[in-house]
Amino acid sequence: MGTVNRQFRLASRPVGMPVRGNWNFTEEPVGEPKDGEILVKVLYISLDPAMRGWMNEGKSYMPPVGIGEVMRALGAGKVIASKFPGLAAGDFVGGMFGVQEYSLALGRAVSKIEAPADSLPIYIAALGMPGMTAYFGLLDIGRPETGNTVVVSGAAGAVGSIVGQIAKIKGCRVVGIAGGAEKCGYLTRELGFDASIDYKAEDVSAALRKQCPKGIDVFFDNVGGDILDAALANLAPRARIVICGAISQYNNTVPINGPSNYLSLLVNRASMTGMVVSDYFSRMPEARAVMAQWIKEGKLKTREHIVEGLQTFPETLLMLFSGKNDGKLIIKVGAD
Amino acid sequence: MGTVNRQFRLASRPVGMPVRGNWNFTEEPVGEPKDGEILVKVLYISLDPAMRGWMNEGKSYMPPVGIGEVMRALGAGKVIASKFPGLAAGDFVGGMFGVQEYSLALGRAVSKIEAPADSLPIYIAALGMPGMTAYFGLLDIGRPETGNTVVVSGAAGAVGSIVGQIAKIKGCRVVGIAGGAEKCGYLTRELGFDASIDYKAEDVSAALRKQCPKGIDVFFDNVGGDILDAALANLAPRARIVICGAISQYNNTVPINGPSNYLSLLVNRASMTGMVVSDYFSRMPEARAVMAQWIKEGKLKTREHIVEGLQTFPETLLMLFSGKNDGKLIIKVGAD
Repeated sequence: MGTVNRQFRLASRPVGMPVRGNWNFTEEPVGEPKDGEILVKVLYISLDPAMRGWMNEGKSYMPPVGIGEVMRALGAGKVIASKFPGLAAGDFVGGMFGVQEYSLALGRAVSKIEAPADSLPIYIAALGMPGMTAYFGLLDIGRPETGNTVVVSGAAGAVGSIVGQIAKIKGCRVVGIAGGAEKCGYLTRELGFDASIDYKAEDVSAALRKQCPKGIDVFFDNVGGDILDAALANLAPRARIVICGAISQYNNTVPINGPSNYLSLLVNRASMTGMVVSDYFSRMPEARAVMAQWIKEGKLKTREHIVEGLQTFPETLLMLFSGKNDGKLIIKVGAD
Repeated sequence: MGTVNRQFRLASRPVGMPVRGNWNFTEEPVGEPKDGEILVKVLYISLDPAMRGWMNEGKSYMPPVGIGEVMRALGAGKVIASKFPGLAAGDFVGGMFGVQEYSLALGRAVSKIEAPADSLPIYIAALGMPGMTAYFGLLDIGRPETGNTVVVSGAAGAVGSIVGQIAKIKGCRVVGIAGGAEKCGYLTRELGFDASIDYKAEDVSAALRKQCPKGIDVFFDNVGGDILDAALANLAPRARIVICGAISQYNNTVPINGPSNYLSLLVNRASMTGMVVSDYFSRMPEARAVMAQWIKEGKLKTREHIVEGLQTFPETLLMLFSGKNDGKLIIKVGAD
């Protein structure tokens, strides 16, 4: 087609925090779709903590990104050419498009987005993987009941901010753990959390003891490390811990700091359960409809942090680990 | 009544392994039952890993034993005098009688044992708390399905040996982890386990990888520490870990070694759930009937390790932590 596709490929596996040298920024001609495929112009790329795990060697819920391969990423874009019956040029779609400007994808592996271009970011945020993770992780694994105390770590993040708001909708007392006064204020003033704990300024275990006088019924963990241990020390009987992530541990160069208070599970007859959102693929349309309705009614607020320019990818990704993003982190690659 | 009651009272809280100096061996006249009470001559005392936890200060599923109090212990004995309508002198009973020769107990808090004196040990072993722990922990929390791979740590112990046999009855592949060739041989040759792993001689993680080619579906953990981490590294998708105990950690003088492989719960969508057997009190008669039938049919073998003499208590207790007992550890206090 004559057009150039630019992309970030994994050059080497990071030790600790990823650096620009772990990437090659490459160019190649845009390909043409084969039967069943579509060619997508990528408009938005979703940056997610899980990407750090995909960069490591070794067994996980997905194979690692291979050295030399385009970095795996979710995104949203516009169909440019289609050899898949269900999609036509001009359609908007979401899928695993990678960190690049154009993507060849299997038509059956993408979702059509029936919305205008300017609402695409929400389809990779609250109505995308982070929103689905919050919805199924909280409701299916956490199983909050009215009056329960729900605590979420990484509470100002893409997943955590939605977990807390869904828990409020379900009639729970909600306490969010986040870093810094600004994020904490956002949780209580704008998102309606009952309380927030600033892990950078407070003793988290003492603050949880104060904010959760009857103990924690549901702990939704995105962070791991000391914060998970503090939550374990403050469980209510029959508490449910949802292990969604452990962003504090992803760049470790030493073995992960395991939760030394795990015997609190025994004392409290509590459970700790892992979840991976892709297991819920078949139920996502239902969840997306419920969430879209909550957004329309103003019960669920969303915030996207959009950075312009594919070439910023290596540095923008690091905002997730320093906590500098303010809402769901997205790169805007190009204009519609 | 003129008779003397001898007893072990907690003199100080142990730091690390308990020593004889943590106990006072005291004497006092035997008391008389008040209304609703019975006086029991204690015949057998159950020695259980949980006793180590009861000696520590701090919040748990039961209050700690107070300094100066008779050490808490389950046991079986004979009613000597009764002011409780449902029990009469001569009846055999099981209950929380403490480490002593005679016990005053509330009649409603004990269970009548309809069996001859020489079968009392089994009522504090396979048909007592260890057996109930195995039954409900495995079946209610572990939920093994036919064809599942079930791994149990502390497999030659009072709980573990029953867990493995119930899992065999339920049609599972069963792998036991125990210390030493003798215990391992007992598991496979006498109890019908499919395989055993000697943690003193083998790399447990490598051995689990070999013995559980499809991964571990249910891990019943009595041990904690490195063995829990090895099991986490070898989970099958949707595995269930039952946290029953952590005998490797009970005498720690430093913080517990948390399971650094806990993110395997996420990768495998697995769960780790604590259990305390006393929650199942109301269902124990049903479980006891099922287990008694299995014993009668020869499907469930039990072994008790009986040490004679109340005065041996401080040293006998330590056998649990060195792994020197061979079957459910019981002290025989006196003759019927």
